[in-house]
Amino acid sequence: MDDSRIWTAALVVIGDEILSGRTQDKNIAQIASWLGVQNIRLREVRVVPDVVDAIVEAVNTLRARNDYLFTTGGIGPTHDDITVDAVAEALGVDVVVHPEARAILENYYADKGGVNEGRLRMARVPDGADLIPNRYSGAPGIRIGNLHLMAGVPDITAGMLDALTGSLEGGAPLLSDTVGAWVPESEIAGLLMEVERAHEGSQIGSYPFFREGRVGANFVVRSTSPETVKSCIDSLCEGLGEMGYDFTPGGI
Amino acid sequence: MDDSRIWTAALVVIGDEILSGRTQDKNIAQIASWLGVQNIRLREVRVVPDVVDAIVEAVNTLRARNDYLFTTGGIGPTHDDITVDAVAEALGVDVVVHPEARAILENYYADKGGVNEGRLRMARVPDGADLIPNRYSGAPGIRIGNLHLMAGVPDITAGMLDALTGSLEGGAPLLSDTVGAWVPESEIAGLLMEVERAHEGSQIGSYPFFREGRVGANFVVRSTSPETVKSCIDSLCEGLGEMGYDFTPGGI
Repeated sequence: MDDSRIWTAALVVIGDEILSGRTQDKNIAQIASWLGVQNIRLREVRVVPDVVDAIVEAVNTLRARNDYLFTTGGIGPTHDDITVDAVAEALGVDVVVHPEARAILENYYADKGGVNEGRLRMARVPDGADLIPNRYSGAPGIRIGNLHLMAGVPDITAGMLDALTGSLEGGAPLLSDTVGAWVPESEIAGLLMEVERAHEGSQIGSYPFFREGRVGANFVVRSTSPETVKSCIDSLCEGLGEMGYDFTPGGI
Repeated sequence: MDDSRIWTAALVVIGDEILSGRTQDKNIAQIASWLGVQNIRLREVRVVPDVVDAIVEAVNTLRARNDYLFTTGGIGPTHDDITVDAVAEALGVDVVVHPEARAILENYYADKGGVNEGRLRMARVPDGADLIPNRYSGAPGIRIGNLHLMAGVPDITAGMLDALTGSLEGGAPLLSDTVGAWVPESEIAGLLMEVERAHEGSQIGSYPFFREGRVGANFVVRSTSPETVKSCIDSLCEGLGEMGYDFTPGGI
């Protein structure tokens, strides 16, 4: 494995309910955090409406330039659940009923009125797809090529992510460390830029806050190299000390 | 004004902190809801990293095909705040210091150590831009053409949206009404599709929930025509009644 290569993912959030503001998205943060643990970086996210052309455009653009693509939403039983159809169109394959998915649904709905037309929609997959187990509500997620089609309901997506844990190849872990200081970030912008520029492969994020009536900020250093992280943190602490600010290694 | 025309907006959320999962985005829902009140529909959202090329691509694609484009994030004082530079590049204009923004910052920081290089970054705008007032923290938002560059911190963005309220032209109001029922949405998927197809210009969203140990769903009808909304709701109630379900006009 080439440890220096960065593995990337993109996410397409599908759903009018996010774009109308009715529903607060929670899948972006959840999937981003989970990908981080798999040593895969979320590079870009698009939120698109329940419209086939919009889904196809996003899926085809993002799957081509990332190692992995995730989608959330639109895999339920109702007429506006069109993710499977749109992804099949994007991939140029047919939609088929997956026998195992059908069996899962028949079993799940055996004591709930049985499988009807709407419920059977949830057994449809792009031809060639595998299933991602859903321990909560029967209807599985779908994996085909580098695409992973997940539920829109965050708790169900969480279960699907659990099922995928450890199954995706990632790159070198992105390490991070933090130093916090009671300083307005605008007073030390120069220091942050200087330290980041002096350390190739480092990223320094500044996360200001207002707490106990005072402003402060946490500065988060990220790199795949432990030496780089340590050297950046040392340089930040030294710079903050020279400028007369109290700082707290590990963050405030 | 052509009342039948739909006015659209797109949003570019800029920030590594969203893509790393460190920060839960709140601006998508906030801006979506605010746009709804202005009778403008949020059509698409992209979340991009703090990388000039990624911002330029998103801004140029989305501004061309929507009436309005909003961005959040990357207008602060630190080295990773590059939204102004990226937007200027996308528009093919220079970055200049806006005299009024500079005066606002000099006043705001007069008793906080004065304006330094980092703080002065927040007075930089693409040439030709106007300011959007920021009543919380001095540094203004920026308006140029159909672009609106807003803060990343949700409370500050909220203040900037307040300042913009009523200043953007929108289309006919999107009306909505709701009926709720204690029914698994998968049992009435056929009814929803049938009613939507019978009413041109309607959208019916299904929002399932699990409450008090039972599953149910709210069905939200949206249209710019009050007659269409009423007819859809009537058809849904009739269909639910015929199938033997209790339903609650207005939603559960």
